[in-house]
Amino acid sequence: MDNFFDSPLTGACIFGQSGGPTAVINASAYGVIRTALDSDVITKVYGAAYGIQGVLNDELYDMDEEEDYELKLLLNTPSSELGSCRYKMADPDVDDSDYKRILEIFKKYDVRYFFYNGGNDSMDTCNKISKYMEKIGYECRVMGVPKTIDNDLFGTDHCPGFGSAAKFIATACMEIGKDTDVYNTDMVTVVEIMGRHAGWLTASAALATEYGNGCGPDLIYLPEITFDLDAFTDDVVKIMKQKRNVLVAVSEGLHYADGSFVSEAKTSGTDGFGHAQLGGLAVKLANYLKERLNLKKVRGIELSLLQRSSAHIASAVDIEEAFMVGKTAVEAAISGETGKMVALERDDTSGLYSCRPVLLSLNSVANYEKKVPIEWITEDGNYVTNDFINYVLPLIQGEPKIPRSNSLPRYARLKKVRAVAPTKNTVTME
Amino acid sequence: MDNFFDSPLTGACIFGQSGGPTAVINASAYGVIRTALDSDVITKVYGAAYGIQGVLNDELYDMDEEEDYELKLLLNTPSSELGSCRYKMADPDVDDSDYKRILEIFKKYDVRYFFYNGGNDSMDTCNKISKYMEKIGYECRVMGVPKTIDNDLFGTDHCPGFGSAAKFIATACMEIGKDTDVYNTDMVTVVEIMGRHAGWLTASAALATEYGNGCGPDLIYLPEITFDLDAFTDDVVKIMKQKRNVLVAVSEGLHYADGSFVSEAKTSGTDGFGHAQLGGLAVKLANYLKERLNLKKVRGIELSLLQRSSAHIASAVDIEEAFMVGKTAVEAAISGETGKMVALERDDTSGLYSCRPVLLSLNSVANYEKKVPIEWITEDGNYVTNDFINYVLPLIQGEPKIPRSNSLPRYARLKKVRAVAPTKNTVTME
Repeated sequence: MDNFFDSPLTGACIFGQSGGPTAVINASAYGVIRTALDSDVITKVYGAAYGIQGVLNDELYDMDEEEDYELKLLLNTPSSELGSCRYKMADPDVDDSDYKRILEIFKKYDVRYFFYNGGNDSMDTCNKISKYMEKIGYECRVMGVPKTIDNDLFGTDHCPGFGSAAKFIATACMEIGKDTDVYNTDMVTVVEIMGRHAGWLTASAALATEYGNGCGPDLIYLPEITFDLDAFTDDVVKIMKQKRNVLVAVSEGLHYADGSFVSEAKTSGTDGFGHAQLGGLAVKLANYLKERLNLKKVRGIELSLLQRSSAHIASAVDIEEAFMVGKTAVEAAISGETGKMVALERDDTSGLYSCRPVLLSLNSVANYEKKVPIEWITEDGNYVTNDFINYVLPLIQGEPKIPRSNSLPRYARLKKVRAVAPTKNTVTME
Repeated sequence: MDNFFDSPLTGACIFGQSGGPTAVINASAYGVIRTALDSDVITKVYGAAYGIQGVLNDELYDMDEEEDYELKLLLNTPSSELGSCRYKMADPDVDDSDYKRILEIFKKYDVRYFFYNGGNDSMDTCNKISKYMEKIGYECRVMGVPKTIDNDLFGTDHCPGFGSAAKFIATACMEIGKDTDVYNTDMVTVVEIMGRHAGWLTASAALATEYGNGCGPDLIYLPEITFDLDAFTDDVVKIMKQKRNVLVAVSEGLHYADGSFVSEAKTSGTDGFGHAQLGGLAVKLANYLKERLNLKKVRGIELSLLQRSSAHIASAVDIEEAFMVGKTAVEAAISGETGKMVALERDDTSGLYSCRPVLLSLNSVANYEKKVPIEWITEDGNYVTNDFINYVLPLIQGEPKIPRSNSLPRYARLKKVRAVAPTKNTVTME
């Protein structure tokens, strides 16, 4: 932070979004863009079309061209408004062509600030760019802005995007619970929830049961625990002795002891599945139970990408924090920080939830995956403990006021005007 | 209405819910129960457990035992709170045992009013009971209260339940549209929407496109039009020439010229599908396009029962009308009506939408199915006209204030106290 009072680094910034979208990643975008536009030292704000690919392809949007009103609507707009990508950067020691190209673009647009909004892979991208620029001696501040509904980013109490997804999942499971309870017949409903390697989202379904008068999943299976078809069947049978309708939440990442995904299990008899089991994991497990327990009625439901796109039921806490991490990234960079990710640090010592932004070295977060602690899963491996409930509950709080038109959400409509490089820099190379 | 001023028919009432639940069927329940509880001539209000089966099994709940506060929460509680059934009554001329049993229960509890909330089949049940009671000479007022998300009930402008489902579908499609627009790759997403025989719900997805700045389905296929795989493929190709991401909404009830459902098409080559197409209709069609058009990215999404259970995003107009039809049924019955269904009659002559309740003979509505008028479907059969948009838009209006606890919906929790028959009537038979 030393050089801030001396001579702040002036220049343009590029902001990009990466990985799978969330309900609030655009709130982080607004945090970055608004703060950068309002800054005296950031001379120009560019948005990268489709993440780092927009930098590589010289496809940048001029954020000055956007209406303030539309930009502000980003706070409640789901999905990645600037477009996203899943692009794995090479190791610069092996192949530095992408890095050279990025440097070229940075010079072309006089870019001295780079903000990248994403999950694990994006923090890795951030880290590599940061190190390369340092090594090459190009002064540039690189900051990671976290997001992921999966909540598997290391070093942060939780990730922006997770709370809203958890809230949608809890609400949907409560409503599904109400719905499946309607007929006076034995029925098992299996709901498939996102999370390939970490069970945070699936675990959140427990909120429906805890706060919906039992109207939520009776059983919850996370990828942190090896899945066993016999134990699963026994669990269901046990619940069916108490009630006619059983609701089960399963993570898409459930796997057997050998590491193979249950969702990818072949339809032959070898893996315990009998006849052809069509469809995704939920339908597969539902049909398996139907056959094995001779049930008349089963149902498999995949919440699919509504989990990450349902901004209409976002958490106000999540939106606020998503905005804050974006804003903090810009402020920290201006004050001299680089090579950092903005993380969230929880303080609930007072009994009340609060979170403040802290900076972590990108080295320490890139490529690590945070899983649900085993001690937050019940001993029999089919539900979560109160510690998890206490962890997640504050993150889903608050109803944002969603701007509407004709009773439908009014989401941001950006003009996305293609940026033109400043003339003075187009020919000057350092 | 003649006998109202003379001597109103006093006695108990039974209310039952039937068929698939909706987001607002409980608002109709509240309309019936509240009005009946407040009435001077209805001496007792019973709720049937699991629809007509609760009558047949002598499983009735005593509505006097419920808290006013919890009853009022029914206005925003999805699903059928009293439980539902799908039970087809026999023709009484062939087998009158169910009717005799119903008469026995009616006498046992001194029931003079019967209100039944459901769709086509339930109106048929209502009609049969009404006729039987009349034939047998047991004085009893029987009224149908309409509901169905499918909107296929004859004689009413629309059905309570449809507006809220349409609003969820439009919002979800807008959010899915935002989400799928994120990557810079060719992609087709197929969304499967409920409606086996009528396309009202699938057509409603157009609201996302019309009011979401194009962020909704580009193509819409209803069961009113025979489905053709080649025409479908051509339509998609045509859209892909204009934009990289194509969103398609399909009705679960799509069928080929021979009447067979596309969803049930075998995975052999005979029906135009190539290799194994697993999953439901959306996945099936998405995979078909993937193979035929050599696409890298396709996605199939089934909105599943969230369509009928998403009370958190219900239409305020729908809730109000659902309550109104329930209330009107009770008031009309008290004033002497019987054998009627409460329908909704639209008046938009002033340019402003309004709907008033009218009574239709159950004879005229039972077992007819109302489909989307062919003139509301575009000539090439892959979208809907403005007439449909103008029809549906008023029905999704208004955001209800959802009671919440811990930022999750606080749905009604009824005690469901089993009713005891009044002693004076238990041994007396007419």
